Amino acid sequence: MKLTILGCHSATPSINANPTSQVLEIKNHMFLIDCGEGTQVELRRNKIKFSRIKHIFISHLHGDHCFGLAGLISTFGLLTRETELHIYAPKGLKQVISLQMKLSDTWTKYQIIFHELSSKTSKLIYEDDKVEVYTIPLIHRVYTNGFLFKEKANERKLDINAINEANINVAYFRKLKQGFDVENEDGVLISNEKVTKDPVPAKSYAFCSDTVYNEAIIPVIKNTTVLYHESTFLDKNEDLCMPTKHSTAKQAATIAKKANVETLILGHYSTRYDGYDEFKSEAQTVFENTLLAKDGKSFEF
Amino acid sequence: MKLTILGCHSATPSINANPTSQVLEIKNHMFLIDCGEGTQVELRRNKIKFSRIKHIFISHLHGDHCFGLAGLISTFGLLTRETELHIYAPKGLKQVISLQMKLSDTWTKYQIIFHELSSKTSKLIYEDDKVEVYTIPLIHRVYTNGFLFKEKANERKLDINAINEANINVAYFRKLKQGFDVENEDGVLISNEKVTKDPVPAKSYAFCSDTVYNEAIIPVIKNTTVLYHESTFLDKNEDLCMPTKHSTAKQAATIAKKANVETLILGHYSTRYDGYDEFKSEAQTVFENTLLAKDGKSFEF
Repeated sequence: MKLTILGCHSATPSINANPTSQVLEIKNHMFLIDCGEGTQVELRRNKIKFSRIKHIFISHLHGDHCFGLAGLISTFGLLTRETELHIYAPKGLKQVISLQMKLSDTWTKYQIIFHELSSKTSKLIYEDDKVEVYTIPLIHRVYTNGFLFKEKANERKLDINAINEANINVAYFRKLKQGFDVENEDGVLISNEKVTKDPVPAKSYAFCSDTVYNEAIIPVIKNTTVLYHESTFLDKNEDLCMPTKHSTAKQAATIAKKANVETLILGHYSTRYDGYDEFKSEAQTVFENTLLAKDGKSFEF
Repeated sequence: MKLTILGCHSATPSINANPTSQVLEIKNHMFLIDCGEGTQVELRRNKIKFSRIKHIFISHLHGDHCFGLAGLISTFGLLTRETELHIYAPKGLKQVISLQMKLSDTWTKYQIIFHELSSKTSKLIYEDDKVEVYTIPLIHRVYTNGFLFKEKANERKLDINAINEANINVAYFRKLKQGFDVENEDGVLISNEKVTKDPVPAKSYAFCSDTVYNEAIIPVIKNTTVLYHESTFLDKNEDLCMPTKHSTAKQAATIAKKANVETLILGHYSTRYDGYDEFKSEAQTVFENTLLAKDGKSFEF
């Protein structure tokens, strides 16, 4: 699982601060999460192949999370894309994009499939044999969802030496990987755990931006491998959280601790601060395993 | 008159190629012309004060000329702008921007005044005591205007020595600057040209992007000081001009020559070319005084 931060700053983009966008590589998928202005250029800068993006998840319709989408869609078209594109976004974005395309008389050769979100409870919005994606209802100034990306349980690993010794036919390997006991060539039932090893643990990633401190998300993100939680402010500016519906670094860390996640990544920093080390140290007073998002930085888990 | 190129490339933005946007400083105005994705960051990079932009001119609704506008408007709001903003753009953009603002529940404290363009003939769309702006109807795949920015005739310059010698009262200076003959203190009529000098010539700038070769614009841009004319292609790819409704460098130069402009600036280069020197040399076979636009480059005239 690899997370690349294309942008992790709030509000207005500037020369060294891109608005929110991330790419999550998970089980051969390349999921684009949020798409602030300039995302397509950051995709190029980070050498991410446009053709690998087939699913885009938009948390909410504030400009710093979606104003790069129309340009990206348009560029996909100019690159003569033919693969369909799925967009998971709050109701309304389809209308904007459709209007922009109509006015520019631009029609893509590829199909755009909008999955319009409006539920206020967590929903399964994508599933295949390897991965599930759920919404994480957040509380912000407009309708907003985080997203939980979960690998499905991996298959058990074969212990080839033990299998040979137990004299099991190759035809049963599939069953073994799935955890079943099987009969060997002599008709003897072999216990699965004697000839397989535990699978690589399934990983998960929860993206939570933008939101006030909201403990209601904890059951949804419980035990997640990696949590990205916005920390627009430091604790000293906590008074700004309620009016703007944002969180502090300390609040993000509290959510991480209560949800028992492995790693917390902070981001969505307000432009009022010069550096971000204080976000990390503040969060670490509550939750030790805290990392800082940075534009262009990748995390492997 | 100072022109700053924020972006001069066609179609998709990339790391070193911004889509179209320019700032024209003329008679204390700071006019923003087109606003492709990333324009607000380029404004910062070029240290242009956001508050000085009061008028934005959008040529057409292709994304590479307008997808940065919603973000800029939003940033103006976050910077607590209160000065009104005038936007001159094809009919339809108001609807898009309004919808984007409605969906993001973002309302600016400053007033946005849309001047929706739909005429197919050249119109005066802005005027004050120093400057006039006219549309230049272009032929492109969608409804498109170029813009002609014209200084009004400057006032005559006073020749103070001659004025003192002629014994003219200071109360008449205004009339002299305007070109009138005036009476001196002895009641003698003094010819204007004896006590004033010719004014600084009025300058003008014509922005023409995107368009096919179209001689119909010549009467509108005749004798312009500076013409920016798109040159998406080189002559060797002239076959691409009609389907895409763009021009070659040679065609741009031919327009410059026939319109008798002083200086031609080329831009809106297709991404298919590696360098741009050939655009200049090709144009110079027809029109010698040709310059190349470049992102971040300023021209003073």
